[in-house]
Amino acid sequence: MRGGGAAMARLAVAARAFSSAGGGVAMVQGASRGIGLEFVRQLLRRSDQGRVVATCRAPGSAAELQKLKEEHAPGRVTVLPLDVTDETTIEAAAASIQETHGSLDLLINSTGILSIPNVIQPETTLSKVQKSSLLLAYEVNAVGPILVIKHMWPLLKIGGRSDTGRGFSLVANMSARVSSIGDNGLGGWHSYRASKTALNQLTKTVSVEFGRKDNITCILLHPGTVDSDLSRPFQRNVPKDKLFTREFSVQKLLSIIDSVKKSDNGKFFAWDGQEIPW
Amino acid sequence: MRGGGAAMARLAVAARAFSSAGGGVAMVQGASRGIGLEFVRQLLRRSDQGRVVATCRAPGSAAELQKLKEEHAPGRVTVLPLDVTDETTIEAAAASIQETHGSLDLLINSTGILSIPNVIQPETTLSKVQKSSLLLAYEVNAVGPILVIKHMWPLLKIGGRSDTGRGFSLVANMSARVSSIGDNGLGGWHSYRASKTALNQLTKTVSVEFGRKDNITCILLHPGTVDSDLSRPFQRNVPKDKLFTREFSVQKLLSIIDSVKKSDNGKFFAWDGQEIPW
Ligand SMILES: NC(=O)c1ccc[n+]([C@@H]2O[C@H](COP(=O)([O-])OP(=O)(O)OC[C@H]3O[C@@H](n4cnc5c(N)ncnc54)[C@H](OP(=O)(O)O)[C@@H]3O)[C@@H](O)[C@H]2O)c1
Ligand SMILES: NC(=O)c1ccc[n+]([C@@H]2O[C@H](COP(=O)([O-])OP(=O)(O)OC[C@H]3O[C@@H](n4cnc5c(N)ncnc54)[C@H](OP(=O)(O)O)[C@@H]3O)[C@@H](O)[C@H]2O)c1
Repeated sequence: MRGGGAAMARLAVAARAFSSAGGGVAMVQGASRGIGLEFVRQLLRRSDQGRVVATCRAPGSAAELQKLKEEHAPGRVTVLPLDVTDETTIEAAAASIQETHGSLDLLINSTGILSIPNVIQPETTLSKVQKSSLLLAYEVNAVGPILVIKHMWPLLKIGGRSDTGRGFSLVANMSARVSSIGDNGLGGWHSYRASKTALNQLTKTVSVEFGRKDNITCILLHPGTVDSDLSRPFQRNVPKDKLFTREFSVQKLLSIIDSVKKSDNGKFFAWDGQEIPW
Repeated sequence: MRGGGAAMARLAVAARAFSSAGGGVAMVQGASRGIGLEFVRQLLRRSDQGRVVATCRAPGSAAELQKLKEEHAPGRVTVLPLDVTDETTIEAAAASIQETHGSLDLLINSTGILSIPNVIQPETTLSKVQKSSLLLAYEVNAVGPILVIKHMWPLLKIGGRSDTGRGFSLVANMSARVSSIGDNGLGGWHSYRASKTALNQLTKTVSVEFGRKDNITCILLHPGTVDSDLSRPFQRNVPKDKLFTREFSVQKLLSIIDSVKKSDNGKFFAWDGQEIPW
């Protein structure tokens, strides 16, 4: 009897852990590296049943992601090709998820660009601002995530009801503190800033429609300054204790994702749960 | 003696009007129609010496603008071709202004698009959001004005000292209340909203650099809902007393432009002088 009680208690704890910590189907968009890859890793670790759809531009060369897939039970990780600048790949991913999973409970858009050698660099002055950089950052950082939400919308509508314990589907878009206009005291980084500010507005706009019609909540997240390929060229002036590991940042972000309420729809949270002004 | 005194007084009033009301060289970008054209008209009316550079895509077919030019003394109005989507035309305009005027005291970016039949329509739902619309609105409404500021920067640096009575050069970008994220309770109009929100961030970013290095101040303006080609298809639900004439709106906006202080750098004002939240 005592053993039975303990087993029941363990079961209850496991069920709670499962329900609060990512049963259902989560999609991580931009999962080949960095924060996106770490989201996949931690989502898989927290329950033994939640399924993760991990998308990236080139699944074939996303070695760490493929390794994660192999380490887990068949069906837990689905890797799909998705390039946010090619809408047909977004539509194809949506069709594939529809067929395999039928719904989505969580969508994390992690894709983002700040610099690409010889293509785009964060501007230090207006005189270095190039039209091509402004447009490319906008296409990847703002347009991309919104098109992903557009095509995953039917799946998100169906999701959110059961396994997750949340009671609604959640979209989390990775923004950045530098997107805040009110908080912009430094200037510079025109293309990146403007694209993320636009992402904030687009996310807010979508959240208004979802809040009216659907059981879907949208939030924006700032991960802190996180050690990744994106931040590496710009880490020189970051004090050591202000440069987070991906593990730490994603842990914090997942705890926000776990505790989000419907009334948080359209809000912008930093890694520590503080709201960031627009 | 009495007549002489009155003449002196009239002269003094005229000089004050001139100094506070637009001597120097003002550029109105997007001057073929609507609010931009009205800015040209009112700037010319307020002094008999201030010069106006009016730019538009197709000077040849900008009949009302050409008429304004003819009605005023030679040299007071310069009409130049400028399409914000073609950076070479911006550079050519800057070179021409450099040659003719040597400096700029005021730059008003009025160009903006909301709808173009069969090309772009304000979205009523996420499902109607098109990549092409997002990119086009961004190119015209956000990238365009910033490239104009970039190329006019050397002229603005030289300006602002003398004739205007202002003591600094001023850049005024036409934004829109719907660009406010904090104020977005209605949703919709994704492409237009996001482009104007990005314009706000870009203007703020530029204002930080100018505030540090130069004698140039940047502000953002919301003209109210104004009777023009831009608003015409969407005026149905606007109460009559909330639909401003171009004359009224530009009068209000010019009174803001006249009273701007250096400490207003980077701020966003509605037609009535109230600040709009980001
Ligand atoms: N790291 C920070 O300090 C920091 C701070 C604030 C905000 N953020 C935001 O956090 C998010 C994640 O950043 P991170 O540090 O993890 O960056 P990262 O390590 O550079 O990873 C960027 C990810 O975006 C993907 N990506 C780039 N272009 C893409 C496209 N066209 N289609 C699909 N995926 C694309 C990359 O895939 P490939 O492998 O195919 O290139 C990669 O998976 C970004 O949105 C970033 O802006 C990061
Ligand atoms: N009207 C309103 O209720 C309202 C409300 C809020 C904000 N605003 C903003 O106020 C500004 C002026 O609006 P409006 O009502 O005067 O609009 P409008 O009457 O439609 O005039 C738009 C102007 O933009 C020009 N333009 C369009 N594309 C261009 C390009 N690629 N390069 C250069 N010029 C281009 C047009 O020139 P063409 O003649 O060559 O087409 C025209 O002169 C816009 O920025 C608008 O977003 C207006």
